Amino acid sequence: MDGWAVRAADTFGASDRSPAVLRPADTVGPDAAVRVHTGSELPADADAVVMIEETDRIGDELEVFDAVAEGENVAPVGEDVEAGQRLYEPGHQLRPSDLGLLKATDVDSVEVVDRPTVAVIPTGEELVQADPAPGEIIETNRMTVSRLAERWGADVTRREIVTDDHDALRAAVERDLTKDVVVTTGGSSVGERDLIPEVVAELGEVFVHGVALKPGHPLALGRVHETTVVMLPGYPVAAIINAVQFLRPLIKHLGRMPCEPLPSREATLTRKIRSEPGTRTFVRVRTEDAGGELEATPTRASGSGVLSSVALADGWVVVPEPREGIPEGESVAVENWEYHV
Amino acid sequence: MDGWAVRAADTFGASDRSPAVLRPADTVGPDAAVRVHTGSELPADADAVVMIEETDRIGDELEVFDAVAEGENVAPVGEDVEAGQRLYEPGHQLRPSDLGLLKATDVDSVEVVDRPTVAVIPTGEELVQADPAPGEIIETNRMTVSRLAERWGADVTRREIVTDDHDALRAAVERDLTKDVVVTTGGSSVGERDLIPEVVAELGEVFVHGVALKPGHPLALGRVHETTVVMLPGYPVAAIINAVQFLRPLIKHLGRMPCEPLPSREATLTRKIRSEPGTRTFVRVRTEDAGGELEATPTRASGSGVLSSVALADGWVVVPEPREGIPEGESVAVENWEYHV
Repeated sequence: MDGWAVRAADTFGASDRSPAVLRPADTVGPDAAVRVHTGSELPADADAVVMIEETDRIGDELEVFDAVAEGENVAPVGEDVEAGQRLYEPGHQLRPSDLGLLKATDVDSVEVVDRPTVAVIPTGEELVQADPAPGEIIETNRMTVSRLAERWGADVTRREIVTDDHDALRAAVERDLTKDVVVTTGGSSVGERDLIPEVVAELGEVFVHGVALKPGHPLALGRVHETTVVMLPGYPVAAIINAVQFLRPLIKHLGRMPCEPLPSREATLTRKIRSEPGTRTFVRVRTEDAGGELEATPTRASGSGVLSSVALADGWVVVPEPREGIPEGESVAVENWEYHV
Repeated sequence: MDGWAVRAADTFGASDRSPAVLRPADTVGPDAAVRVHTGSELPADADAVVMIEETDRIGDELEVFDAVAEGENVAPVGEDVEAGQRLYEPGHQLRPSDLGLLKATDVDSVEVVDRPTVAVIPTGEELVQADPAPGEIIETNRMTVSRLAERWGADVTRREIVTDDHDALRAAVERDLTKDVVVTTGGSSVGERDLIPEVVAELGEVFVHGVALKPGHPLALGRVHETTVVMLPGYPVAAIINAVQFLRPLIKHLGRMPCEPLPSREATLTRKIRSEPGTRTFVRVRTEDAGGELEATPTRASGSGVLSSVALADGWVVVPEPREGIPEGESVAVENWEYHV
């Protein structure tokens, strides 16, 4: 503390009306006080500090208006962190205050887990980055999936659109086998031109093809050497839903980060939701505060290609596999999948 | 959809056992189908698409195994977004899916609010960045406060330590009057060397000096021309608490971002908390899952200089002004102030 280092006993009985009178000095001794500042080491022979506000210096005299006890206004060595103390468990995510504590304890280097590296490769001969001609579609999955992956903690490389050609796709996947994860978008369903799972199976193995999610059925997962390949559907909504379900936990796992549940809020459904039993269904909703209670209304459009159903939503309601829809008025959890987690 | 564009009427009655037989062609007409891919424009005269999986091409014949209704597997123009539709209200924070939707609708530029600019200036002659001699302290506030401000959305400039000298402090504040916010740490209390509020009052005005927070009493707020000056105390814990209380809402306000309440979790206090009535008290706690219920235990040390009380905590419990502590066993909200919000 800012003040005067003293022997506590010399201040006993001091008060506003009857101050203890000490002597400013260079060393602490009987009735001798030394000026100290926040963070100063306690001078030899001192055992307490009187705060500057409780003193008045008049010439060669120092009046002290309050008694201090032994140790008062003095931080003991080891008060903050003791030598040998274990500060963090392995896997701990360093927060701003942690960086401060490490610096304060003179730790200037720590071993960290690298951010997982992810390449995002959009595929589809109908895709363009801008100015679509009739029959062409503006590619959006690279942008949405890359931004999500970065929020989840990945180091993302964005690749150009690859057309639906076997050799071009194979070259694109092979090029990124230095990455922890290759994410492709498009070309994972069962149409004539859905070549990606074929290419991945040639190079390595495909161990999942098709999941009971709606939207998001045509997802495929594979591995080539050390690289996991996440084959997302081309439909923008399905791509986002599958990225949240499969890419997020993968990134968290590779980066040894905790994969917390998505933040969610309770709301009352204003309209019945339909769903197919046996399929986990993601219904995009808008939420509105109705007199202190949150109401959730499914968005107008529901198609897996309708990006506005996601972008203009406040979250989604998950209908679990065993259920056949959810009736109006039921309380549901609205998950916010674009939160920073 | 991937498949064949047809006149729906030509498929009526089609089934696995009795397929409709059409003719692959370049234009759609009676019994003539045109191959289309996801995203293709619907050819003239077609009014539906048969999915590729429901067809079999044998030479010049196309067998269709399922009837389609008019409009089936065709996305109407405007299904996603209609011309003239307002997508976002002013102030909306663009999320990954929003970027996708804007790109899909060929919006390639939007007007955004600049990130608020913040200069962080640590002050104090006792401070060093590394290798402290006796009586010197390693500076940590710049690191913690800067990282927090960045998480809250600010564009942060980190300045060197300024010593407790009137002219040096004045020059440091003046240099950063191009910023939206100047944050100083240290030198805001009432010690002999606490010069910052004095300097700010000379250059502009100080409108708050001292708040009923513990830790965090010596905060000061001022303004010089258009720049807000947030004078944080030097004690690391007080600096963090005041930054969360005052700097976070300021950054959110300047960046026109919503200032959401800090995420919090309910927990049961395992030990009594003491506090002074009339003061809002921030008690750092560790939380532990005790058989499905969360328990909160105040951290060992509580001093405002004890950074480990924050860095090794899981959150804090706020004791409101009217209360004199909180008894053991009471349910409390543990706020997580280092979340990305």
